[in-house]
Amino acid sequence: MRRIITITTDFGTEDHYVGAMKGVMLGINPEAQVLDITQEVPKFDILSGALTLNSFYTYYPKGTIHVAVVDPGVGTTRKPLAIEAGGYFFIGPDNGLFTLVLKDSPMPNIVEITNPEFMLKNVSSTFHGRDIFAPAAAHLSVGAGIDELGEELATPVLLNLPEPTAASDQVRGEIVYVDSFGNLITNIPRELLKEGANVKVGEIFLGAPKTSYGSSGEGQLLAIIGSSGYLEISVNQGSAFEALGRDIEVTVLFNNK
Amino acid sequence: MRRIITITTDFGTEDHYVGAMKGVMLGINPEAQVLDITQEVPKFDILSGALTLNSFYTYYPKGTIHVAVVDPGVGTTRKPLAIEAGGYFFIGPDNGLFTLVLKDSPMPNIVEITNPEFMLKNVSSTFHGRDIFAPAAAHLSVGAGIDELGEELATPVLLNLPEPTAASDQVRGEIVYVDSFGNLITNIPRELLKEGANVKVGEIFLGAPKTSYGSSGEGQLLAIIGSSGYLEISVNQGSAFEALGRDIEVTVLFNNK
Amino acid sequence: MRRIITITTDFGTEDHYVGAMKGVMLGINPEAQVLDITQEVPKFDILSGALTLNSFYTYYPKGTIHVAVVDPGVGTTRKPLAIEAGGYFFIGPDNGLFTLVLKDSPMPNIVEITNPEFMLKNVSSTFHGRDIFAPAAAHLSVGAGIDELGEELATPVLLNLPEPTAASDQVRGEIVYVDSFGNLITNIPRELLKEGANVKVGEIFLGAPKTSYGSSGEGQLLAIIGSSGYLEISVNQGSAFEALGRDIEVTVLFNNK
Repeated sequence: MRRIITITTDFGTEDHYVGAMKGVMLGINPEAQVLDITQEVPKFDILSGALTLNSFYTYYPKGTIHVAVVDPGVGTTRKPLAIEAGGYFFIGPDNGLFTLVLKDSPMPNIVEITNPEFMLKNVSSTFHGRDIFAPAAAHLSVGAGIDELGEELATPVLLNLPEPTAASDQVRGEIVYVDSFGNLITNIPRELLKEGANVKVGEIFLGAPKTSYGSSGEGQLLAIIGSSGYLEISVNQGSAFEALGRDIEVTVLFNNK
Repeated sequence: MRRIITITTDFGTEDHYVGAMKGVMLGINPEAQVLDITQEVPKFDILSGALTLNSFYTYYPKGTIHVAVVDPGVGTTRKPLAIEAGGYFFIGPDNGLFTLVLKDSPMPNIVEITNPEFMLKNVSSTFHGRDIFAPAAAHLSVGAGIDELGEELATPVLLNLPEPTAASDQVRGEIVYVDSFGNLITNIPRELLKEGANVKVGEIFLGAPKTSYGSSGEGQLLAIIGSSGYLEISVNQGSAFEALGRDIEVTVLFNNK
Repeated sequence: MRRIITITTDFGTEDHYVGAMKGVMLGINPEAQVLDITQEVPKFDILSGALTLNSFYTYYPKGTIHVAVVDPGVGTTRKPLAIEAGGYFFIGPDNGLFTLVLKDSPMPNIVEITNPEFMLKNVSSTFHGRDIFAPAAAHLSVGAGIDELGEELATPVLLNLPEPTAASDQVRGEIVYVDSFGNLITNIPRELLKEGANVKVGEIFLGAPKTSYGSSGEGQLLAIIGSSGYLEISVNQGSAFEALGRDIEVTVLFNNK
């Protein structure tokens, strides 16, 4: 059963765009359960979209169809994609949005969506979310095989992800995402932290990662391992983004000798 | 089967208002599939609501019930409406919000909702979305006939829509909607454009409409036929609204001789 | 049948957080009907969350499971709660968020969620919404008893709610909530208003509460009984918050003699 479809875009919530996508989906599969993840990925920011997608998709039951559209190249030669990977389906533009999904998946099945039978009759050049991605997702949800959508695509576009640099005495990373609390989320995974870690943000030493936001005083900066497993810089009941901006260097020093 | 109900309002997403409407609907029909279109129509802006509604409703399967509430006159003599038109149902205030729906529909069935059996027991004078429109929609979704809701209404309120002016050598229009990307959407439909069209915005000539946002350089202004079939002014990966505002005149010149 | 689950948080709509919660719920109960109320409770504002919850929950059918998370103390000694009260279920942190629900309910059944069988395998210290509250709600929705989640909790945290002061000739209250229209909602219930009421805001006399926003001229201040039964200060087609701010004293004088 593949009737759960999630939607993640940079379309915003003010306009009719996502509403039209939901209508197309329900027209093809009235039993689909269509869920908003967020429509507020920063506009045209493919990396933020990729990080968002990677943060939630594994929490869904296998078979879920995840539609993601951050698509500045809509209507150009940019290809529409469908992916089966790790037991999930993904639909969206071939621009790197699925980089993290593909990185985690040993044997993805990737096709370029070309079959007009699985598109709306009139395909606009500005809104493939409605005209190509929504119908493709809905057709998968009623049992179409991914291979019916088009031909295999061997080399999808992949982003160059900013990677932390690790040495024996320190790890250096950067802020890759800022959430609505103003938490500054780094690209340093939990696995790279060792005993005696002391987190340095710009010139400020924050000590070891705390175990909760409330471990620091209200309004105090702290380091913490966030819920996606990455080091983040936060302010207890406040915004680290307001305090520091996002263009900061984060270094973790291991000073146990 | 009429169990799909969409909600479009200017209620915002910060408060409990739309959540209360959904609760009322599910109390009457626990099987209803209730979908948010947008709750962020600009507040009290009936024309924007009408344009939004017109942009998505036909993408839903026939039988869908569309609730729309932009309702500065709630609690006054303004009437509550139910409409059956083109195979869809519409519920909301009689203030012009359904002007475009009615314009496209040759034989609408319009009733004023007056039957208290299809309202909440206590009807407030400030929140008909919850007390009148939500229950009316839910009752339709479980099979009530539109005629059970009240008496036929012969002359619904209609908006004066801003229309473009067309001559043999040019069409002049205006911006009627700004989306969250800052795209400036005009009232000039695709059908009024002829070969050799050259779009002029204020004093800037943009040439012929492009076929994709990406056909122009990043940050460049362009004209394009948007996904609802109207001429729009856009910036590739940017905001035309930030560049130009919305109080601009748009002229399309046909200079093929 | 308890398959309706509502979500109210301060998590915002920009990130993946609520999307991850929905995924966890659907992984446990694919038939759950998961509904957003609002994810935009002002951040860390437990009182606003409590007022929001109290404004909509009774409009849902009995058996509905309401998840609410405004949780600055996540990961500290703050307890996770499940409550059965008035025929509804509530899940969230023990920090006062359910004060108004408990005040209205004579015999609530309250448990501290401690049973790891009803949590995700790995419980983070920063996101109990996903790791504890979402699975608890989903397990209730498929029939788990609230007592299976943990042990009874005798003394939940309760907020000190700001109460109006009533005398024979006047009632004094304060603004406890500002909605997205800029309506200023007081803590003065309809029941405390008597004939001859004259509402005074700061030094401005607004007269008797009006029966609709449109009873005043456009842009005019007015007093009105809002849809939750409390006195509110509004501007017809405008924002009372923009006009007055929220730090104002509201007095109702009864000058009928």
